[in-house]
Amino acid sequence: METIRDWRPFATEHRVATPQIATDHIAVTWSDGRVSPFHFAWLRDNCPCRLCVHGLTREQTFEIIDTPEDLAATEAGCDAGGLAVRWSDGHASRYDAGWLRAHAYDEASRAERNLRPPKVLWGAERAETLPQFDFVDLQTDGPDYLAWLTAVRDVGLTLVRGAPLEPDTVIRLAQRVSFVRETNFGVRFDVESKPNPDSSAYTAINLPPHTDLPTRELQPGLQFLHCLANEAVGGDSLFVDGLALAEALRRGHPADFAVLTTTPMEFWNKDAASDYRCSAPIIALDGRGEVAELRYANFLRGPIDAAAANMPAVYRAYRQFLRLSRDPALRVVRRLQPGDVWVFDNRRVLHARTAFDPSTGRRHLQGCYVDRDELLSRIRVVERDAT
Amino acid sequence: METIRDWRPFATEHRVATPQIATDHIAVTWSDGRVSPFHFAWLRDNCPCRLCVHGLTREQTFEIIDTPEDLAATEAGCDAGGLAVRWSDGHASRYDAGWLRAHAYDEASRAERNLRPPKVLWGAERAETLPQFDFVDLQTDGPDYLAWLTAVRDVGLTLVRGAPLEPDTVIRLAQRVSFVRETNFGVRFDVESKPNPDSSAYTAINLPPHTDLPTRELQPGLQFLHCLANEAVGGDSLFVDGLALAEALRRGHPADFAVLTTTPMEFWNKDAASDYRCSAPIIALDGRGEVAELRYANFLRGPIDAAAANMPAVYRAYRQFLRLSRDPALRVVRRLQPGDVWVFDNRRVLHARTAFDPSTGRRHLQGCYVDRDELLSRIRVVERDAT
Repeated sequence: METIRDWRPFATEHRVATPQIATDHIAVTWSDGRVSPFHFAWLRDNCPCRLCVHGLTREQTFEIIDTPEDLAATEAGCDAGGLAVRWSDGHASRYDAGWLRAHAYDEASRAERNLRPPKVLWGAERAETLPQFDFVDLQTDGPDYLAWLTAVRDVGLTLVRGAPLEPDTVIRLAQRVSFVRETNFGVRFDVESKPNPDSSAYTAINLPPHTDLPTRELQPGLQFLHCLANEAVGGDSLFVDGLALAEALRRGHPADFAVLTTTPMEFWNKDAASDYRCSAPIIALDGRGEVAELRYANFLRGPIDAAAANMPAVYRAYRQFLRLSRDPALRVVRRLQPGDVWVFDNRRVLHARTAFDPSTGRRHLQGCYVDRDELLSRIRVVERDAT
Repeated sequence: METIRDWRPFATEHRVATPQIATDHIAVTWSDGRVSPFHFAWLRDNCPCRLCVHGLTREQTFEIIDTPEDLAATEAGCDAGGLAVRWSDGHASRYDAGWLRAHAYDEASRAERNLRPPKVLWGAERAETLPQFDFVDLQTDGPDYLAWLTAVRDVGLTLVRGAPLEPDTVIRLAQRVSFVRETNFGVRFDVESKPNPDSSAYTAINLPPHTDLPTRELQPGLQFLHCLANEAVGGDSLFVDGLALAEALRRGHPADFAVLTTTPMEFWNKDAASDYRCSAPIIALDGRGEVAELRYANFLRGPIDAAAANMPAVYRAYRQFLRLSRDPALRVVRRLQPGDVWVFDNRRVLHARTAFDPSTGRRHLQGCYVDRDELLSRIRVVERDAT
């Protein structure tokens, strides 16, 4: 029976030892003693045969509703370490041991699968020891390249040095991850003091810690900022690890943490040509209660729209958040040199810059965005090809 | 005192009648008798004066943490129908009546603001009466243009006729809303039967109802599909209103609805060059329990990763969903003519096409995406400029 394989390899030392047919599932006992139940519907739904999966796209053509609800396994056996099943409607399926083990949903298998790479929290102490890479080393898919991608994912802030001082170099670097995400500020944006600014970024004033484009349903995932010139007095870069800030808030001020994870705040852009709005909490938690992202720019907020009875607690929590965003222990301060590129997770890291005096010299950065999806896809493909 | 105004106008017939200072807020009684409390922190945070808001960007430069926690109003008065406040630290603020009324957060004001344009649910009965527009009428910002934008938002499916048969016309139409959202399938994608397809879309097989790119954290909001040729036998277009389907499920099968709104399903793309994954429920609810989006393509699912005890209920619910997706009463079936462009909400509407026989004639569509944010921003700006 021809099997249409997944793109990933599934090496395993474990083998199906005893498959036993029960009422609505097959209980597989593995060679290491683990027992994994596989329901009839789940197995049938995942049949990898040529009739159920398209040979070229490797996408499923079969839909589970085309089998009767009482479909049952009539035979189950071991086959070269994997599982072979015959169904009550006559169809036959075969599952490789590696694939089956990788997708088993007994409790132990699910717990193994849910282990995530640990996030590295940081503060001022990391100012001189941030993950740092050379532009030239990222031009090929070698170990530096993968180390850079995983540092962006797990640390959230990296410095790439030695980038050429040509315009659009930032795009070239971003394209080492993927295509660029366009926004209302263009494919590439130029951060410099402009005569008719449509954003505080394009003035010379102090820009307090923020994420870019909190006004959008999906904030850009990664931000690239390339320094072409930094000759003005002032204009230092400043970063706050939003995960570290959120954990400090959770630990030290749990009531404020609860408010900021549940109260939608208004984020509105202010522009003649666009009117983006998003209403969402400053700190978003995922299904496990872990911090998924921060959404925050003081200068892009609209009036808070909360019940009157909650307003005092909302402002108490917001003040506490602002206080932490100014805590020197949480701040990495660095001055960008021409040829430096900051690459950071815009949904995790708050960035800021101090005021600068445009009359004292030129300051010009170019920036662009790439989404988290692109980074994660790229890491998976590189890791897949490396095995 | 110079006020930096919002881009929106705020016409109101109501005036501040009596502002009364209480412990932590000012209670404003309006000329129509409504009473709105405004907390000191909220009012101070929203001071629109030139010291607190940047004159060019109209973005706030002031941060609430720069005032003492015990900041209080010492004087409150009416001023040309609006509210004038003097603060304990000496600062003075003035709020226009229209702006203040539009952002008041007493219960009645919040309820008024939370009224949303009603969503129009539809099924097979609408096949011949879908919102339909002429390509040429959408080239200027007239009433047809706004009617089209709001139909996309509120109905979710529109047909634009009379588009030129030149390649990239679909981009031209999309740019009437905004810039295009690039994906791993490019800025523009060509839907035709291809020799080495990396998606079922690029084969000639039956493509069951689905949303595009459910494998991504943010599915594309709007999809544009422009027909350049449709001469093959087969290949009809088919649409299911996901909101109508979800409401039918909620009404008829509440337990299944509960499962599909809470169980994360796996969506994985299968490709040599990319490996996108998203784990999320098929039906997503917003904070009010209303359906926010559907995420669904049978052919892009990964194995379901649920607790073994829940697996039977998950497949029962999934079968019910599939059954409804095939219900003729919920399906709009139409055959695209050259020059037709479908514009629909990809996160609301499931689309499908029947199998076609590429040996009988050419079938060629071009497509692209724009996000919901862009549509909503555009509508707000057009409505703002119209008042």
